[in-house]
Amino acid sequence: MTKREDMVFGIRAVIEAVEAGKEIDRVLLKRDFSGELAGELFAVLKDNGIRPQRVPVEKLNAITRKNHQGVIAYISPVNYQPIEEIIASVYDRGETPFIVVLDHITDVRNFGAIARTAECAGVHAVVIPSRGSVTVTADAVKTSAGALLTLPVCRPKSLEDAVKYMKSCGLQIVTASEKASTNYTKADMTLPTAIIMGAEDKGVSATLSAISDVAVSMPQFGKIASLNVSVATGILLYEVVRQRNAG
Amino acid sequence: MTKREDMVFGIRAVIEAVEAGKEIDRVLLKRDFSGELAGELFAVLKDNGIRPQRVPVEKLNAITRKNHQGVIAYISPVNYQPIEEIIASVYDRGETPFIVVLDHITDVRNFGAIARTAECAGVHAVVIPSRGSVTVTADAVKTSAGALLTLPVCRPKSLEDAVKYMKSCGLQIVTASEKASTNYTKADMTLPTAIIMGAEDKGVSATLSAISDVAVSMPQFGKIASLNVSVATGILLYEVVRQRNAG
Repeated sequence: MTKREDMVFGIRAVIEAVEAGKEIDRVLLKRDFSGELAGELFAVLKDNGIRPQRVPVEKLNAITRKNHQGVIAYISPVNYQPIEEIIASVYDRGETPFIVVLDHITDVRNFGAIARTAECAGVHAVVIPSRGSVTVTADAVKTSAGALLTLPVCRPKSLEDAVKYMKSCGLQIVTASEKASTNYTKADMTLPTAIIMGAEDKGVSATLSAISDVAVSMPQFGKIASLNVSVATGILLYEVVRQRNAG
Repeated sequence: MTKREDMVFGIRAVIEAVEAGKEIDRVLLKRDFSGELAGELFAVLKDNGIRPQRVPVEKLNAITRKNHQGVIAYISPVNYQPIEEIIASVYDRGETPFIVVLDHITDVRNFGAIARTAECAGVHAVVIPSRGSVTVTADAVKTSAGALLTLPVCRPKSLEDAVKYMKSCGLQIVTASEKASTNYTKADMTLPTAIIMGAEDKGVSATLSAISDVAVSMPQFGKIASLNVSVATGILLYEVVRQRNAG
């Protein structure tokens, strides 16, 4: 359930929350909403790609007894962060970038499980696309054991641009692919690194594979030969940890 | 659902299946079951700890039109194997034992996920206790992506005896413990090895910890500091693979 502190109401407060870059889950608007500031609110919502949901005023009254002025916004528990800021801040601290990119992972449990492992492994940020993928829902937060509330998450408009940006910042781009011939332990993970994990069914997209510096795979000996994506991510992330700690 | 081939009917056939060591899921017996072979059947079932379920004869007739003689047994899709046979056969093949012991893991999804990873990593067998733990249910098989149908599973009456037996066969016993000071990459996993993973809440039991040769942990850097048990198992198993392949 949404906690009280994740809720903003009143026209000016909602406009300010959106303009401050808060991640808005949804906006409830009373049916006959209008007035002096209505135009400004509509413009701000539209500029930020937020489509308000029209509800009877009674619903708003049931949510808060305070003066909501016909609008209530729910703020996402996660503060998405620009990848540019993450990378800059990592380099500023003298650390070696360690980023995980999820290429259209659609299973919320896998997303949560990966975030949990990433947080334990000391990953600096998880990058997810803004469309066609998981988002930080309550279920994802729960599966992540709360990791998604502390681990920085980036949701760039273009995953391709974000990966190219990281490459331009000196990160090697490693993709996990079952077909790759390079054993994952042979890649030098002590370098600044972004690891791209693909969707369960399709793997890493051709566009991102083309930008990648190295594709790695894990040896598999059984008849099934199909590691779960969250387990595979855990193995890869801890190989990074192992190599960096061995130095 | 149980497939036809997992079903055995007729008094002599059921007796033979039980005596051959087949893992029996359940036995259906018609209400007024009696006759010449009844005593022998009852004795065999009792000796093997199987409690038959009494049903109307109509139920048996609905399951098969063949001559069931008042008894139908369902055989588990998994053929549990004695740990003694597994170890002997691994040594016979000139391989280095690689066993996973699950100490009262109760979450079927975690069990399935671990079995899936174990199969991929080339583990020789997964050992589970006969009581107070998961069993190979249809759900477990599904989560394992079918791994539980090919990976040998042992279910000894005493987990402690099984671990002691493995130790007497020259296996080092490695337990995973969040409190251990030894980094998991520092243990020599090229030796014959059994890895014990503990229950999600309680960890490895004191009894098994006392038998253990080395307790290892994974470094954790975040605030959550709690890897999921199936991910932690994946990381440990692939460290074994890495060390053995590096040699």
